[in-house]
Amino acid sequence: MEKRNKVEVCFSPAIYSAFQNNDAVVVIVDILRATSAIITAFMNGADKIIPVATLEEARAYKEMGYMVAAERDGIVRDFADFGNSPFNFTADRVRGKEIVYSTTNGTNSIMMASSSFRVIIGAYLNLNSIARYVIDKNHDLLVLCAGWKTKFNLEDTLFAGALSGLVLKNSNFYTICDSTLASIDLWDTARKDLMGYINKVAQKHRLKKNKLDDVIEYCHTMDQTDIIPALKENYLVKLSEIEASSQVGE
Amino acid sequence: MEKRNKVEVCFSPAIYSAFQNNDAVVVIVDILRATSAIITAFMNGADKIIPVATLEEARAYKEMGYMVAAERDGIVRDFADFGNSPFNFTADRVRGKEIVYSTTNGTNSIMMASSSFRVIIGAYLNLNSIARYVIDKNHDLLVLCAGWKTKFNLEDTLFAGALSGLVLKNSNFYTICDSTLASIDLWDTARKDLMGYINKVAQKHRLKKNKLDDVIEYCHTMDQTDIIPALKENYLVKLSEIEASSQVGE
Repeated sequence: MEKRNKVEVCFSPAIYSAFQNNDAVVVIVDILRATSAIITAFMNGADKIIPVATLEEARAYKEMGYMVAAERDGIVRDFADFGNSPFNFTADRVRGKEIVYSTTNGTNSIMMASSSFRVIIGAYLNLNSIARYVIDKNHDLLVLCAGWKTKFNLEDTLFAGALSGLVLKNSNFYTICDSTLASIDLWDTARKDLMGYINKVAQKHRLKKNKLDDVIEYCHTMDQTDIIPALKENYLVKLSEIEASSQVGE
Repeated sequence: MEKRNKVEVCFSPAIYSAFQNNDAVVVIVDILRATSAIITAFMNGADKIIPVATLEEARAYKEMGYMVAAERDGIVRDFADFGNSPFNFTADRVRGKEIVYSTTNGTNSIMMASSSFRVIIGAYLNLNSIARYVIDKNHDLLVLCAGWKTKFNLEDTLFAGALSGLVLKNSNFYTICDSTLASIDLWDTARKDLMGYINKVAQKHRLKKNKLDDVIEYCHTMDQTDIIPALKENYLVKLSEIEASSQVGE
């Protein structure tokens, strides 16, 4: 008998306990900007990314000699090497390096999912690669949106809808989850004019205020890589380093 | 200068602290079935509704002589007078009475909002009356969806979108809230065939399993009354008893 896997979407880390599922592949999403930046760092050759939740942790890693990406409200912190924009993770800076990435919402989401079957990092940049991996693994899918300070946000939800829709095309997957159904309907509304739709989301206005909105179009670009960052202990590496030969396209 | 009021939607009581706003009119929504049933009780002449979160509280009120509506999983509790369906609150049973209504999600939502400007009970049954009241009051609007065990649910979200959309037609109101924008888009998707859309929500399946789904169409019927139940201390009365002459149509 075929295994039937459920698809669920959690809109905020604050309600994650209601979704906790150790059998699931958990996809962490923080489109603007953490997960898009982390994927970009691996695309440009980074060896390892250590996500940290606080500036204090970021500073402590800096003092140990790590390269550190840390900013708040658009200002790069004095101890850091550069800020959190995906554009900062250029090949000349990151190739072969271990890099600390400061992201409060993202780090909390990653670590709370650590007991699940697998924790991976998703964004539009690796959307179809993630969908293929989830289908291939034949486990439940839980999309965990990092949200904004415990609140729902639209940009992560749209990605959740795009990914859920792709995975649910495979008959081994089903959903009875209202957040998943809502995400898919919102994605279907937004996809026709994605950048027009993204114009209205709250995070765009926050980024614009701090002159950080130049990354929005890039963060909504589809399928630039097959790389899937995955959690190993408390840091991220390429999935192919954890699951030999399982990553599609590597 | 005109006062500009913000419109927000909170998808779950579990993240209410991020939305807490003492200046707001807070509209509690639990379409299937608590807020639809409470409004129905007032339509049929009830004097007062006391919402309680636990069966123990409901039983204690019964022992004090109150009429009590309490069920779990479709079974009316042995101590109760009848269950939680809107159809139970007939005029011959409720006219002139004080009634205890057992609802975990609904009661918690009502009580956590009690420090706000006003807490009122919303459903499709009084949708336009609520919109007129909110616009007339010229306060912020916060729609608090009771959800399902801390999770997002679609049926409350659709109502939130319907109500937010009506209020935002008035130029004294604005929103920069992603949950509100999502609710409005979901409502716009669903409204063309509301009962078809509601067919897929998780709560429909839960109700159907317990043979309680006969109320779904009634709970999505628009504008059957101008009555708005409102919180006074720890119980609900008609808003007109709190705000003399302010309730539209009364």
